[in-house]
Parts: sequence; C-alpha cells; structure tokens
Amino acid sequence: MPTSDTMLAIVKPEAKAGSTVREVPIPKFGDGDVLVKVKVAGICGTDLHIYDWDPWAQGRIKPPLVPGHEFCGNVVAVGKDVRTVKEGDFVSAEMHVACGKCYQCRRGQAHICQNIKIIGIDSDGAFAEYVVIPETNIWKIDPEIPADYAAILDPLGNAVYTVCSGEIIGQTIAIIGCGPIGLFAIAVARAVGASTIFAIEINEHRRGLARAMKADHVLDPKSQDVKKIILEATDGVGADVIAEMSGNANAIRMGFDVLRMGGRASSLGTPTEPVKLNLADDIIFKGATVLGIHGRRMYETWYQMTALLKHNRLDLGPAITDRLSMKDFDKGMELLKTGQASKVLLYPNGIR
Amino acid sequence: MPTSDTMLAIVKPEAKAGSTVREVPIPKFGDGDVLVKVKVAGICGTDLHIYDWDPWAQGRIKPPLVPGHEFCGNVVAVGKDVRTVKEGDFVSAEMHVACGKCYQCRRGQAHICQNIKIIGIDSDGAFAEYVVIPETNIWKIDPEIPADYAAILDPLGNAVYTVCSGEIIGQTIAIIGCGPIGLFAIAVARAVGASTIFAIEINEHRRGLARAMKADHVLDPKSQDVKKIILEATDGVGADVIAEMSGNANAIRMGFDVLRMGGRASSLGTPTEPVKLNLADDIIFKGATVLGIHGRRMYETWYQMTALLKHNRLDLGPAITDRLSMKDFDKGMELLKTGQASKVLLYPNGIR
Amino acid sequence: MPTSDTMLAIVKPEAKAGSTVREVPIPKFGDGDVLVKVKVAGICGTDLHIYDWDPWAQGRIKPPLVPGHEFCGNVVAVGKDVRTVKEGDFVSAEMHVACGKCYQCRRGQAHICQNIKIIGIDSDGAFAEYVVIPETNIWKIDPEIPADYAAILDPLGNAVYTVCSGEIIGQTIAIIGCGPIGLFAIAVARAVGASTIFAIEINEHRRGLARAMKADHVLDPKSQDVKKIILEATDGVGADVIAEMSGNANAIRMGFDVLRMGGRASSLGTPTEPVKLNLADDIIFKGATVLGIHGRRMYETWYQMTALLKHNRLDLGPAITDRLSMKDFDKGMELLKTGQASKVLLYPNGIR
Amino acid sequence: MPTSDTMLAIVKPEAKAGSTVREVPIPKFGDGDVLVKVKVAGICGTDLHIYDWDPWAQGRIKPPLVPGHEFCGNVVAVGKDVRTVKEGDFVSAEMHVACGKCYQCRRGQAHICQNIKIIGIDSDGAFAEYVVIPETNIWKIDPEIPADYAAILDPLGNAVYTVCSGEIIGQTIAIIGCGPIGLFAIAVARAVGASTIFAIEINEHRRGLARAMKADHVLDPKSQDVKKIILEATDGVGADVIAEMSGNANAIRMGFDVLRMGGRASSLGTPTEPVKLNLADDIIFKGATVLGIHGRRMYETWYQMTALLKHNRLDLGPAITDRLSMKDFDKGMELLKTGQASKVLLYPNGIR
Repeated sequence: MPTSDTMLAIVKPEAKAGSTVREVPIPKFGDGDVLVKVKVAGICGTDLHIYDWDPWAQGRIKPPLVPGHEFCGNVVAVGKDVRTVKEGDFVSAEMHVACGKCYQCRRGQAHICQNIKIIGIDSDGAFAEYVVIPETNIWKIDPEIPADYAAILDPLGNAVYTVCSGEIIGQTIAIIGCGPIGLFAIAVARAVGASTIFAIEINEHRRGLARAMKADHVLDPKSQDVKKIILEATDGVGADVIAEMSGNANAIRMGFDVLRMGGRASSLGTPTEPVKLNLADDIIFKGATVLGIHGRRMYETWYQMTALLKHNRLDLGPAITDRLSMKDFDKGMELLKTGQASKVLLYPNGIR
Repeated sequence: MPTSDTMLAIVKPEAKAGSTVREVPIPKFGDGDVLVKVKVAGICGTDLHIYDWDPWAQGRIKPPLVPGHEFCGNVVAVGKDVRTVKEGDFVSAEMHVACGKCYQCRRGQAHICQNIKIIGIDSDGAFAEYVVIPETNIWKIDPEIPADYAAILDPLGNAVYTVCSGEIIGQTIAIIGCGPIGLFAIAVARAVGASTIFAIEINEHRRGLARAMKADHVLDPKSQDVKKIILEATDGVGADVIAEMSGNANAIRMGFDVLRMGGRASSLGTPTEPVKLNLADDIIFKGATVLGIHGRRMYETWYQMTALLKHNRLDLGPAITDRLSMKDFDKGMELLKTGQASKVLLYPNGIR
Repeated sequence: MPTSDTMLAIVKPEAKAGSTVREVPIPKFGDGDVLVKVKVAGICGTDLHIYDWDPWAQGRIKPPLVPGHEFCGNVVAVGKDVRTVKEGDFVSAEMHVACGKCYQCRRGQAHICQNIKIIGIDSDGAFAEYVVIPETNIWKIDPEIPADYAAILDPLGNAVYTVCSGEIIGQTIAIIGCGPIGLFAIAVARAVGASTIFAIEINEHRRGLARAMKADHVLDPKSQDVKKIILEATDGVGADVIAEMSGNANAIRMGFDVLRMGGRASSLGTPTEPVKLNLADDIIFKGATVLGIHGRRMYETWYQMTALLKHNRLDLGPAITDRLSMKDFDKGMELLKTGQASKVLLYPNGIR
Repeated sequence: MPTSDTMLAIVKPEAKAGSTVREVPIPKFGDGDVLVKVKVAGICGTDLHIYDWDPWAQGRIKPPLVPGHEFCGNVVAVGKDVRTVKEGDFVSAEMHVACGKCYQCRRGQAHICQNIKIIGIDSDGAFAEYVVIPETNIWKIDPEIPADYAAILDPLGNAVYTVCSGEIIGQTIAIIGCGPIGLFAIAVARAVGASTIFAIEINEHRRGLARAMKADHVLDPKSQDVKKIILEATDGVGADVIAEMSGNANAIRMGFDVLRMGGRASSLGTPTEPVKLNLADDIIFKGATVLGIHGRRMYETWYQMTALLKHNRLDLGPAITDRLSMKDFDKGMELLKTGQASKVLLYPNGIR
C-alpha cells in the first residue's frame, strides 16, 4: 500500500488543449479491484488527440481526466474479493472493460462489447503513479518480460490481432503504414511464420524503423511502383494478407489493389472520411475477406503476445524511440508531432 | 448418342444485340468429356447482358457463341477416359472450369482460379439440345430432384454459398435484393436454421415473391424505415448476417448500417461503380467480416445444395415464374426486362 | 415476490437412495441474483444417478440437496445489481456457473471452466417451486416458445452443440443412441440442413420415437448391418458426421467404423470404462476429427436453440413422453428405469 | 534429357527382405509427366518396412519396385501437355497422387483421396538417378532453399501439418516421439510462434537431437514425471497442443493425460494395435479436439513449408544425421536400426 494519500499524475484539467502534472488523490479501489503502481506507460495516438482537444476528444472526454491506457506495473493492494492476483504481481491490463452481459459479450466478442468503458478515456488511467483496475481485466506478466515491452501490450495486441486474425503461416503480408502498430506487426509477422513481409510507408524516418524491424521489402509508394514490386515478389499472385494500419484512403485502395484473389485484408487504421472502394473488382470478384479490427481479442490475443514475448520471439526495440520521465509529457507530445518518434514511454515512478 | 449430326441452339451470331435459334453441329467431345442432352436450362442476368450486347459483353464475348450456363439433362455419351459418369446419368455441371494448377486451385479456391473458363460465356453452352462438359465438372443428381430445380444449381449455388459462407445457424439475416438469387437465399436461410429472415427489395413484384418464399419480414426501403424495423426485431442488436444481392450503392450502405457489431456481410451483387463506404464506423469499429462471394465453392456448395434438394428442404417454386420452349428465348428476354419475371426456364428438347 | 417463506421441493435428504418432497425455505437471493418461480422442470439421467445414489453421486453430491437443472419459469424478484432481467420475464438458465477468470473462461471455453459449479448438483436446483440463479446465467425466452420446450434447453443444448460442433449443412449424420438427447439431435439435424440422418438404437421403444422424430433411417444394430446400410445410402463414402450419444464401447467403435474418411465424430455419451479404439485405421489414416462434447457453448448454443425454437423449426413433441406433478417424482424415476420413457417433465407449481 | 537409356536404382527385386542396386531403364514419361534427375533423396521409416519385408510391406508392395518417396532434383524433360514446369526447374513432389474425382478430392481433402497412389510404394520412386512425376504433383522450389532440405519436404510436411492443424500461435505444445518428424516439429513450432515446446522421448540419442533443435524442455518419460513438469510449466493448465509422433500406446495415453481442458491432440504416429483410451475423462469431459493426421494438405502445407524454408526460419540441421551415396543404401538401413540415426540422405547422382 502506498504510504501517502496523494500521487503525481498527468491531468487533462478542463475542456481545452494541453494538460498538466499535478498532485491528486490516489484512487480508491473496490472489492473486485486491484491497485497498481505504474512502472512504465506508453503514449498512444489517442493521447495526442486528447492533449490537442480535437473534435473526437471534445465529443468523448469529460475532464478532469487522467489519461493513459498502456502500462505495466506492480500490484500494491487488492480488494477483498480478488482471487487471482496478489500484491507484488507484475501486471498489465486490458483497459477495455466489457459489460459481460450484452449480445457481443455472450458470443465471445467482448472486444466489441456494446457497453465498453475504456480506462484512461472514460475514467482515470495510467499516466499516474497509481492506477485502479478491475481484477477481470488484470493481465499477469512473466517477470522475465522486459517492462518496456510489458507497457505496450495494448498496441502490440492491436498488431497481433491484425496479423493473426486469419491464416498467416507461410502467407505473404503487406503492412500498410509503419507507425508503432505497423512496426510491431512486422515483428509479429516474422515471429508467427509469415512469408515475405512488405512494409509500405511514405515517411522516411518510419521506413528506416521498418528496415530495422527486418521487413523483407520496405517500400515508398511515392517513389516506387508498389504493385509491380509485390507482384514480382509473389509470382504475379499478389499479397495473401493486407494489414491496413494507415487509415489513408489512397493507401487503403492500394492495399486492395495488391491483395491476391482470395486474400485477406485486415483493417485497423481508421479513415476520418468515407472511402470510395471498387467493391466489384477488389472484393467481390476477388473473393476477398475483409476484417474490421478493433482492440484486441479478450483474451486470446493476450495469451499469444505474452507467449511470444516470454520466448523472446519479438524484437520491438527499434520501435521504442524515446523514454521520458512523466513530467516531460509535453515533450513527448512534441516528439510525436514531428513524425520522428514512434513509441514514446513514460516512467511515472521514476525513469530507470 | 444422338442420331443426327445437328441440333437446334440459341446462337449469338455476331457482335451486336439479339440472338437467333439455328441449326448447328452437335459439339464434339474429347476423351475426358461428357455429352449431355439438355432437358431444362435457366436464363441468367448474364445472358441478358450478352443478348443486349452491353459493354461487359462486348469486352468478353467472342461470337458466334451458344450461351447458357444453367442446365440439367441426361448423359448420352462419354469420352473413353471418363470413369465416374455413364450414359443415362441425370446431371448438371459447374460451368466454371478451373485450371487445377494455379495458386488458387492449389489452395482450395478453385472458384476463383486465375485461369477460369466459363462454358456458355467463353465457349458454347447449354441453350442447345446438347452440350459438352468435362467429366471433372459434371455433377450427378439424384433422379428424385425435380428437373426444374436441377437446372438452376448455378444460381442456387450462389445463394447457398452466400448464406453459408460463415456462421448461419440461429443467426438473423437481411437479404438485400430479391432477384432469383435473393429469393433462393430466403429458402436456403430457412433450410439451414437461420433465425429471423429480412428480405429487402424496392420492386413490388419481387416483394410478393419474397413473401411467397416465406421471409419473416419483407421490407420496402422506399416506404419503410428498414433500420428501425430490424433493430426492433433484434433487441437493438442489428442483423447478424447481411447477404448483399443488389449491387446498388445505397443498398450496400444500408446493409452495413443494419449489420450488428461483429456481424458478417457477404457480398454477391456487383456494383458497376466504386462505392463510398464509411469504413471506420461500418467495418472497423464494428469488427465486421466482409466476404466477397464469387461463384460457388467447388464442390462443397454443390454437396450442400444437392443434399438440401434431395431431402426436400427447399421450396423454390415461387421463384420460377416462367417456362418457355427454347424458340421463345426472345420472349424470355422481354419478360426479364419487365421486372415481372424471376427465374425463367427453357426446354431445349421440348417443354414438358 | 412469493407471499410465503417456504415452498415445496424435492429433497435428497441424506446420503442414500431415494428422495422426498418436503417444505423448505424459499432460497435467499443476492444482489446479482434472480428468483424464479419454476413452471416446468425436466428430469435428466443425472437426476436418476442422484436418486439411486450410485458411486458417481456418492462422490459428488452433498445432501441435503434440491436437485434439478433443467427448467423454465417466471422471474418473481431480482437483486439490486441486476440490470438485464426484470420481474415477469420468462426465463430458463445455463446451470453450469463458470468462474470467468480461469484459462478456459478467458479463452472462450467457459463450458469447460476449471471451477465450474452446477446448480442442481453442487447447490440447490429447480425441482422446487422457486430457484435462485445468478443474472449472468439467466436466459430470457420469447413468450411464444412453449414452456415444455423452454424447460429442456439444457439437454436440447447438448444436442445442438453436438450436431453443430462442426460443418453440418448438407452432411450425412449417424446419431448413435436415441435417448432424449439423441432424439433431439434428430430434430436439430433436420432443422439445420443436414443430409441423410441415420438413427441407431437397440431399444425398440426408442427406435419408435426416432421414427416419430423423422430420422431418415432408424437402425437396430442387433438385427441390421448398420455399416452396409450406411455405405449403400452414401455411395460407399460413409457418414460425414457421427453424433455419439450412447457411451457404449461397441457403439463407439461402430461409429468410427461407419465414419467417412475425413469425417467428424462428436462424442457426448460417456463410457464408464476405457474403450479400445483402432486409432490407426479409424482416426489417423481416416484423417478424422474427434470432438469431446461437454455441456453447451456459452452462449452460442443458447442463441442457436432459442432461434430454432422461436421460428418453430424443431418438433420435439415425440421425445416428451410423460408429464407429472412434482409430488409424483418417484413415479418419474420408475418410468425412466423401464426404458419406456424419454423426457419426463415435472410441474412444481401445478400441472397445466 | 539423359544421354543413356539406363540408370542406377535401388530395387526391391522380389518378395523378400533386402534390396539391390542395379541398372534399370530410365522410366518413360507421358504427355502430362515430368522427368526429374534426382539430386538428394531421404530414407523414410516406410522404406525400412519395405527393406525388411514386414507384414505391411508384404500386403502392399508388388516387386520389382524402386522405392523412395522423399527427394528433390532438377527437371530434365517434360511431356508435351506440361505448362507450369520446364527443363532446369529445381523441384520436389507430393508423392501421393490423388484421383481428383472422389468425394474427398471434391471436398478439399485430396490428402485422404479414396484412390490415392503413392509413388515409391505403388509405383517406381526416387531411389534412382531419375524419377517420373505427373505435373500436377510437382512442387517448384526456390533455388535458395538447400537441396538437403528440399529433399525432405515429405516428412517436413507431416510435421508442419501436424503442428499447424489447429491454433498454434502462443500455444504450448508437447511433441511426443522425437524421430525425424518429431524433431522437425520442434523447429516448426518455434518458427510459427508456439509458446513452450516440450519434447518427450525415451531414446537418449534422440533427446540429444531434440535439445539441439531447441525444444524448451526435453523430457524422458522413463525417468521424469512428465505430467508434473508440464503442469508446473503451464500454471497447472496442461499443454494446449499434443503432437503425437510415437504411435506407442502408453505415450498416446500420457499425451491425453497432459492435454489441457479444451486442448488439441494431433495424431500422426500410428499404433500397430488398438489402444485403450479413457474417452470420458481424456476427451469428452475435457472438451478435447483429436485430429487424425495423414500425409500433408495438398497444397496448403507445401506453401507453408516452402515459405518457412525460403525465409530461413527452420534449422533442420541437427535432424539430418547421415549422408550416403546411393550404393550405401544397406548401410543406411543399418544406421536406422541402431536408433543412432535420424534423417539419412542418399545422393543418387553422386554425393556432394
């Protein structure tokens, strides 16, 4: 148990851009909850939306709020009904809290629960010294997994779910967009036995990271004929799998264009506007499978990524570009805006 | 074996609209082929495109051609290498002839073979007294299955593949567009244990047929609030499955709008233009599965539909609106254009 | 809310054979619980084991106990945290209560939860005027579904899960053993579009019921050559699916013998001794899929069976052989032992 | 084209033990066939059965026969109808030749075709300077894949199919029996992202090889408590997947015993006698999936293993223990009998 009643946290204090580091009460935990001392937290693009107070944030966020939904830490206290977690456990958490009673929850699709609440968006999150998580959503982690990796299971889970949402062993894959999740997807595809991995990205810095992650082909759609290169590398067949991480309309169309007859397109990147698609040629005659990917499977994805990390099958190093102490949060925001950072980590209880 | 060397056939004689009934040689069959005396043939929308010589037909069809790719009949002769079919067998055929050697064929996706040839489109088809089919594509039929049903396994297969391309038992399904395949899909959905079946169609005549096929709700999107009705009938969840048969952009968008979170959209109807889709809300956040449907699975679909017909689980009667002798082919074309006909059958060797 | 504090219930009072009807307190319900007034309850073979106090019962049951785990009724009161159920709702329940936290629960296999508790076996059940059920396990039922059917969703769910545990549309199925679940399986197989249905049973009375359920072939392995008949009816291929409901070693081996190359054997019936199997010929060279079936999928199976019942696709009538008032429980036990009864129903609040 | 009419081959000349190297005519090839100059061939356990003329061989083999069904080589001539293969191509082949017309072939299960013929068993095989293969069964290989690996795609395919016959990413797997296929399975499991890999083997030499293949735990069931070790390493859950490669009754039972609730057992090893199984506890209550594995999927497995080899994801080195010139075939047989060899390779056209 913490010895103080207060802690430092990043707070979005009111309905406008920016945030502040301030002292706030350590959150109370209920009978089914777990109190975690945060070791490492990751900054997500969503946190940037909240910081900038963009239209999406204005519609969703109710200040004051402590953001942060990627983290790991150690359990310091548990509620009296908690059975599977104990003080000292090294943990992360699925921050999407499902209701357990709706149609989707009862059909094994809790990740798209009708009543989902996200910790760090709908309630106080992990950019703080302590965070409260319900036992149901705690994920215990092997101590041998590095804390920097344990902190980013949320976006790593997006990558794992996207890559593994269908057949992948021995399949060629084109990963479109090389932000952190796209970069993770390269590592995941290698680790689960994908065939040739194409990484497609217009930002030069990100292409450099994609090369460091060991994609087989790193392509710039602005200067290279992506389709020609993919067809040549696949005996004219096209890519078996598309992992769409960009949300860009042109990139989405390019993805369908290089997808093979009978291939799979898993889409995680979210376009802000409707997208014109050639449904007839690119999906119907092609016999394509298109999968909307949201969040991570509870908890199949978590078992998969924990196993891959435990057995040292993922080198995520190049994708983690910056490590900051919590008070340098504003600097993290700046870094992300330059396009020269990928995953930025914070250390609420002191940088190691 | 036929006693004459010639037969009557519908021929598209040259590169312009229309067709003619004329005497032509009975086609030769090779060592691996089967000669079939055609009993019943069905007219497909594709045949109307060929008849009208529309841009698609101009790009694909090489006259002279005997069209027709839906039929049944009796085997009158077999090539010397044929082992599984014999004279007298009652048969239909998969008219998509796959190469057997391409990537898709070797991965169990022969229905989207890279080198597909369609009998009745790329070579002479079944609007004739006789047709030649390779043994590999012959489908033997239980004599107890009515010939009128055996003649339309091609479009029935489209319906079976669309409805059964994912989980269907106990699932609500919205069938969008009630041409012949949409109507068949109603019967199929009932026969395989779907839950509530919504049939959506703007043409009044077709809605009447959809009611005769026993859809639970037959809806007119021009005068009814389809989304409201579907949500009310599904406890606010939306339809588990969308079977898109219309190819109409607005209908396609409406389909995604009524699809439940985590549902499946199987798309067979082909739009002629690119379609603007709200990918973020309708596919990605929804965690939807979108399947492009082309043809029928070789031969899983064929086993399924043959079994359903053999056990009398499909009443396709209302969808067969007209029966004509082959010489009345022009009349069949006219009927289809009025929107007052659904499946029209021809009897090349005499109407029963 | 009940006006009295007590109710009548069937009680296993102590560790020996038999049971008694007596007045007991109406059970208390917690904040997350639902109190249901029982309308109809079904007697399961398990209840007979408890009644007879066989070795299994001796090892598992802790008297005093109110048995009964198949029922339907109306909600008369709900705990203060209950959100999805209200007074007056017509309900049944999944009586297997999963922990929600174990490996299996977190992987979508709650039906084989490591910490499962069964109401009616591990705690007081539904052979009583009232029963308490946690909200999570309540299953709401359309009022149009007959109460006699709503009472037996537990064993119907066994049948639905067994039949639908793999591909079934258009598949031939051999159902081995025609107790109530085997009989239900016949109805289910018809309703979901199976092809030829073989029902195999040595008891003549049960064969009569199987015929009434409309199996295509009802076979007596004592007097008929089951394998020959199945091979003849399947063009020499064998049955696509085996639904093993007997638990008898010889029947199990016969099942594998008639299973086609590449077929599926779903096994629900539990043998009391180890069984000698020809693994090489019957499973390995055959490329067979063997599925152990336990309980029902939570809650996929429940959605499936509710939809089939709601749309009147299942005629379970012949399998319900006897209807008794609760006080005639002993008579129900006797009926089951004669082999002349199938599903026996009780009416704790008065027979209709 | 070879310049001579004859070649050297290993021949089983008559119906008794042993074999001989002799000069035989180079086999003729048909219009759809390919003539391959054999570079490397692998010796399979089946070849030992043929050599020893055991009861299985006596019932199946019709001498004279050139055995050998694992190989790679270069195409030296093709029949006039061959389109997808040309002189000079580096190739291996699926030696199971399916009929393409039976029920299984038409349902995507050609690997268990009713009319399968195996080259090297039912007709002359690859223990020769040249072998004839139908175009349909030729598998082209990237020149960058080492010939020693390209020669053993047949048994590697057994391993890939067994490991990948169900969910595997992030799953713990117990591989039972560490002959060549079991050893390959270790490499495959690592390459496709399995979690902890247990290798179980009674032979010390093989355990040494299993360690060299980098299994996480190499266990000796004679001296170690396999169940206890697996439960400890899996938080008491048991192994997600069992890959049964031994065919030994006790090992099979041990496998089911360590399989987790809801796990998968894929069985390739074939017992020579019926095996007593505790169906109730080990399969039914466990909700297990048991898969009979025969051969390799045509051609999904081939695409998978080719991709893994091309991207250098499999180190099969330790499993290849001996390399012999073809004339030393007898020595290869002796090596296999000692239990001190794993995969033994032959070089019909000269050892490199």
